[in-house]
Amino acid sequence: MTSTTVPEICKDLDGDDRWLSIHKRFVAECKEKDPDVMFIGDCVLESLQFTDYWNQQFVPMHCLNFSICTDRTQNILWRLQNGELDNVQPKAVVLHAGTNNIEDTADAVTDGILELVRTIRQKLPDAYIVLPTLLPRGQQPNRLRDKNEQVNRMLRERCVGLCKVQIVSVDGGLIQTDGTISHHDMFDYLNLTNVGCKKVFEPIWDLLHQILTENEKERDLTPSE
Amino acid sequence: MTSTTVPEICKDLDGDDRWLSIHKRFVAECKEKDPDVMFIGDCVLESLQFTDYWNQQFVPMHCLNFSICTDRTQNILWRLQNGELDNVQPKAVVLHAGTNNIEDTADAVTDGILELVRTIRQKLPDAYIVLPTLLPRGQQPNRLRDKNEQVNRMLRERCVGLCKVQIVSVDGGLIQTDGTISHHDMFDYLNLTNVGCKKVFEPIWDLLHQILTENEKERDLTPSE
Repeated sequence: MTSTTVPEICKDLDGDDRWLSIHKRFVAECKEKDPDVMFIGDCVLESLQFTDYWNQQFVPMHCLNFSICTDRTQNILWRLQNGELDNVQPKAVVLHAGTNNIEDTADAVTDGILELVRTIRQKLPDAYIVLPTLLPRGQQPNRLRDKNEQVNRMLRERCVGLCKVQIVSVDGGLIQTDGTISHHDMFDYLNLTNVGCKKVFEPIWDLLHQILTENEKERDLTPSE
Repeated sequence: MTSTTVPEICKDLDGDDRWLSIHKRFVAECKEKDPDVMFIGDCVLESLQFTDYWNQQFVPMHCLNFSICTDRTQNILWRLQNGELDNVQPKAVVLHAGTNNIEDTADAVTDGILELVRTIRQKLPDAYIVLPTLLPRGQQPNRLRDKNEQVNRMLRERCVGLCKVQIVSVDGGLIQTDGTISHHDMFDYLNLTNVGCKKVFEPIWDLLHQILTENEKERDLTPSE
């Protein structure tokens, strides 16, 4: 029995221990690097970092990307509770999680995401938490697309009033007038191409840019001791 | 009960029918495009196409890439027997398959790859079939790495004498002196970064270049009717 809100290590079913190797590397990076922004999540954010859009727009922002392809909310939770937010002080964290919780209800997925938000807040009291809405998936309309949309609605309701937590609607333009998603935007109807990334992550970049700029201004206004 | 050599459709366990959508798109592309080279396989070849190395070196060669992340040999076999080699006449096919056949023995994986080779030969009697060796995986030495190496040995033995089938050793340089693989070469210790791609696919590019150039020369020597 697993739950979306209970930290769960990813079992090494394959036998090459890749998940734990990746996690350990992320923990090591926390000790070496000083990121302003951290991306944390699943396949959608993992594949983002292989696009030109990432290299051009996000790399200059001093980002770290701690995303693992198949992770569900409980696996990300385990990673965060085991060192992936230690020794860092990012000004913003971008979280995309839940699209891999195939078996769980929209309600349970929302619980999982909110548990992640709570964990991030606990570890990083001052950081902005940026939640791009869960992306649609599948070439044709399907139940997982509907579920992700439900999660987005619930999240919007349940995040009202949370300090420094911002949901950003990012699916504008992916679903075409006939209801399909193009492989020009999502090569496998789940993960984004470079063109798709630009469409989806531009509002995220804008918000992060704003957060970082405000932060700069605040620092300039604070008299040095 | 599944077998590495029996075509098997990928069941839509998630519920968004992505695998079949991707397959149908590949079949449609066969009718529209006229590739000189086709890449067919799993995650290793799928992720290749998001690198600068792919864009710079392989795109100008008129390549199509029909690779799906999680495919095992039997899934690729199903795709090839259901239209993905119809209406095309590539001069070369590059195949990487078997690393996702986690549960199968090295012997069974080798059988699966050879069945794919037979299928390609049947559909495309004149094409070169290029087999990069199965890549190592996992940050540390592990049983899957050993198994892939065993598959490579068996393949080399069993491909002797096959016409226009060429195995290319491609793992040179990935495994470091301490036995580990760096995330600079394989970001998740399975799929290649741009740096890793260059190391691995340079001999493949060289061979393809040679095949295509020879083909050009032959055509030039043949008196036109």
